[in-house]
Amino acid sequence: MIFNNDTRAGRIFDAGLILMIIGSITVVMLGSVRPLEGKYGALFTQLEVAFTTLFAAEYLLRLLSARHASHYARSFFGVIDLLSVLPGVVGLLLPGRESLLVQSLLVIRIVRLVRVFRILHLGNYLTEARVLSDALRASTAKITVFLLVVLVIVVLMGTAMFLIEGPNRGFTSIPTSVYWAIVTLTTVGYGDISPQTPLGKALASLLMILGYGIIAVPTGLITVGLAQARLTPETSPASAPGVSCQRCGSSTHLPDARYCSRCGEGLLARQTAP
Amino acid sequence: MIFNNDTRAGRIFDAGLILMIIGSITVVMLGSVRPLEGKYGALFTQLEVAFTTLFAAEYLLRLLSARHASHYARSFFGVIDLLSVLPGVVGLLLPGRESLLVQSLLVIRIVRLVRVFRILHLGNYLTEARVLSDALRASTAKITVFLLVVLVIVVLMGTAMFLIEGPNRGFTSIPTSVYWAIVTLTTVGYGDISPQTPLGKALASLLMILGYGIIAVPTGLITVGLAQARLTPETSPASAPGVSCQRCGSSTHLPDARYCSRCGEGLLARQTAP
Amino acid sequence: MIFNNDTRAGRIFDAGLILMIIGSITVVMLGSVRPLEGKYGALFTQLEVAFTTLFAAEYLLRLLSARHASHYARSFFGVIDLLSVLPGVVGLLLPGRESLLVQSLLVIRIVRLVRVFRILHLGNYLTEARVLSDALRASTAKITVFLLVVLVIVVLMGTAMFLIEGPNRGFTSIPTSVYWAIVTLTTVGYGDISPQTPLGKALASLLMILGYGIIAVPTGLITVGLAQARLTPETSPASAPGVSCQRCGSSTHLPDARYCSRCGEGLLARQTAP
Amino acid sequence: MIFNNDTRAGRIFDAGLILMIIGSITVVMLGSVRPLEGKYGALFTQLEVAFTTLFAAEYLLRLLSARHASHYARSFFGVIDLLSVLPGVVGLLLPGRESLLVQSLLVIRIVRLVRVFRILHLGNYLTEARVLSDALRASTAKITVFLLVVLVIVVLMGTAMFLIEGPNRGFTSIPTSVYWAIVTLTTVGYGDISPQTPLGKALASLLMILGYGIIAVPTGLITVGLAQARLTPETSPASAPGVSCQRCGSSTHLPDARYCSRCGEGLLARQTAP
Repeated sequence: MIFNNDTRAGRIFDAGLILMIIGSITVVMLGSVRPLEGKYGALFTQLEVAFTTLFAAEYLLRLLSARHASHYARSFFGVIDLLSVLPGVVGLLLPGRESLLVQSLLVIRIVRLVRVFRILHLGNYLTEARVLSDALRASTAKITVFLLVVLVIVVLMGTAMFLIEGPNRGFTSIPTSVYWAIVTLTTVGYGDISPQTPLGKALASLLMILGYGIIAVPTGLITVGLAQARLTPETSPASAPGVSCQRCGSSTHLPDARYCSRCGEGLLARQTAP
Repeated sequence: MIFNNDTRAGRIFDAGLILMIIGSITVVMLGSVRPLEGKYGALFTQLEVAFTTLFAAEYLLRLLSARHASHYARSFFGVIDLLSVLPGVVGLLLPGRESLLVQSLLVIRIVRLVRVFRILHLGNYLTEARVLSDALRASTAKITVFLLVVLVIVVLMGTAMFLIEGPNRGFTSIPTSVYWAIVTLTTVGYGDISPQTPLGKALASLLMILGYGIIAVPTGLITVGLAQARLTPETSPASAPGVSCQRCGSSTHLPDARYCSRCGEGLLARQTAP
Repeated sequence: MIFNNDTRAGRIFDAGLILMIIGSITVVMLGSVRPLEGKYGALFTQLEVAFTTLFAAEYLLRLLSARHASHYARSFFGVIDLLSVLPGVVGLLLPGRESLLVQSLLVIRIVRLVRVFRILHLGNYLTEARVLSDALRASTAKITVFLLVVLVIVVLMGTAMFLIEGPNRGFTSIPTSVYWAIVTLTTVGYGDISPQTPLGKALASLLMILGYGIIAVPTGLITVGLAQARLTPETSPASAPGVSCQRCGSSTHLPDARYCSRCGEGLLARQTAP
Repeated sequence: MIFNNDTRAGRIFDAGLILMIIGSITVVMLGSVRPLEGKYGALFTQLEVAFTTLFAAEYLLRLLSARHASHYARSFFGVIDLLSVLPGVVGLLLPGRESLLVQSLLVIRIVRLVRVFRILHLGNYLTEARVLSDALRASTAKITVFLLVVLVIVVLMGTAMFLIEGPNRGFTSIPTSVYWAIVTLTTVGYGDISPQTPLGKALASLLMILGYGIIAVPTGLITVGLAQARLTPETSPASAPGVSCQRCGSSTHLPDARYCSRCGEGLLARQTAP
């Protein structure tokens, strides 16, 4: 039942699970707010014990009911399920504040929310997620090149700023200056460190305009990737290579065309192709 | 007259309404500036009373003149019209500062500005607005997936930073740390909270570069959505409504198609159309 | 000579003008730095007098040599040329610091740098600039809709934050809160004002993620606009409507095609079209 | 061996080199952190001497084994290789802290990491890098126009803010104000300088919304550039190099052209090509 959500019982089980995940994360989060913890600390601990017990029971159940227990235990969600329980168990053994810190790790339960797609029968959401990740994967090589260029820029710029501004103006070391360069290049701009000398400001301005332009690159890559994912043949099987008109040779047809749009000839290849 | 803007009177009425909306919002805004309120408080109150009276009168008029009063009252703009009046009436009954706070709610009148499109006969603006919202709606599934991924990232990253930096460096609780993660991922970067330990800075750098890349995803989605909205048959005049196959009625053809892609019939309308 | 840059003398004149513009702006900028002004104030004043005299002379010369003096005087660059001189003249009549402030207005001379395109015979740069501005103009309606939506969002969000955070936490008035909303929505994030209550932080997070998504809209609009500017027939006059093959009717040709790419027929219409 | 990475020895040599580059940069970076330098200063110096000796030896080896020593010495990587050694040698001759500053320059070694592509046989990464740089180069004219517009905006806006806010609110001089305008337009927003007068805030809001829109331009340019780089003939096999007209030699055809668009000759190569 807990692996199969086609049944009504399975769906109710999944819905309950989602509520439990959200509930337990809320408890962990509120438990980290000191004033609330002072007031409701005992209640939070009790709730957390309850949630952990339930999740532990669910994990054991899954382990027992799985056809190949070891296969499940080593799968992605198997590991996440274990990590959603372990900190709770360990946390119970530790005293006071320590326990709370360990329990913070329980927020990893949020990863389980991804199962929400399963319960909602959101097949098309999964398709979209795959389109997104396909577009990203197709751009992996370009993104790697891009990240290397960014790395070289922030290291060189960070070191230059360290030499120009010096430790007395916040640029205390090269790693700190590289951190500043990343904060600036990504246009986050905390302002905890900022240039104060004219030369430093000039170089920072250059870095900002560079970052302004560089931010365009991943956007362009993803956009083109997404555009291609939507236009490539694999999504429209009907217009695969080879489906060209026998009479006039035109190969630009609508995906579901059955007659040539140019000369009216029947598209035979289309009818036999898969 | 107040529902129909094809007449000259209707258009003058609408123009007056827009001026009143802008005027009343300006008064509410200036009334919230303490030095100005001290000086011109009485004037502002009088103006607000006048505006509220007029808007209330207009609301009642609309209610009376509408064919189905209850239908209007429950429509989107009916509710907005009511909300544009209520806080003013309530505000008059409360004393001093309290009244001012309630009157702040009157800025909801700005939503009525959307009517500006009606008065200006900006049909094409409405078309553009529909293209925009269509492009957004077509990407709903992808945007949902994207927001869920963002949620998982900020919760995990926020918790990690809470454990690394701790309450003494501004990361006072998990919710606060998640708030910091959102501020960083979106590249807003207030700087009210910023990492101070080397490990925290390293993790923050990672989050920034991630955010830098992630910002590309919605942009890509919207861009592709917009591009598709412009390329779909309805915008290309050649395949405009009317140019449908005489035999099978199909109306999805390539812009320069001369034969129906579904049945092979010649597209006569195409050959005579300009 | 000063209107015509086809001659050698005209080009040298233009080059000198550009150097003078850059020089005079540099002097104005350095003159605003107090320590430098203390030291070299006299020199800066003399240089500024010299530059202003030269620009004034140039303006008079242009006025005299223009075929229609009044036409030039009212043209865009005629007004810019006048504004590049006036503050200098007025500044000379005022004493000390006052004079300096007025002279700051001379930076408007930078607009004249746009002439750099003329001297460098950068015809294709002008073409590119026109492609850019065409793409922007074609999106005017969508951008207007977008800006109205942004206006409504920042006014409503700003007011909500004013009510939630209140004047004691930096949100001193509705206009200030609206300013904060703009700073946040555009992901600038100075941090001079930032939410401090949990509810304020939650609403700010919402605004940030909204801004994160909304930033995608103008990008998408411009990208699609640019893509269309490059692909539409109107920029390649040769393939204007009407230039379709006489034999097979195909109308998809390369811009400079002289024979039909589908059937090899000569494209007659092409040869007579301008 | 050090120039040729097709042999096994060459590849091991390259891998060792990459480790050495990363190691030496790490040492330089950690050496700039004052507490670490206090503790491990001597160790860092020794390691740096060792790295510099090795890099110097490698440089000499490359110089000796290159077919044309002077050609290598003047090549891009030849200069980088020299710059990766020089500061180390100079640094050894200077005392204490001075030496450390000079050694910071050694981070230029990171540029050599680009060789990582050579060792990993990442031919397709180089292709991707070329696609990226081609897309950037094709947009050079547009980007120049864009940067000039940005320059004009930040100078005018910076000066306006200098006049509005004045030196007492952080806008100490025109160059500083221009720096602020760049920080704002690029949405970095440090917050070290921020407008405080109502008029200044209004103008800043305008600049932010402008920046918000302007950021779309480079993104659009790069996206369209990338999209075109993927769609240009060289990537579509049908019109690959070789498919040029037999009569006039033109090689720019539509992907599905069957006749030369320039002279009308049938494209034979097309009909036999796959």
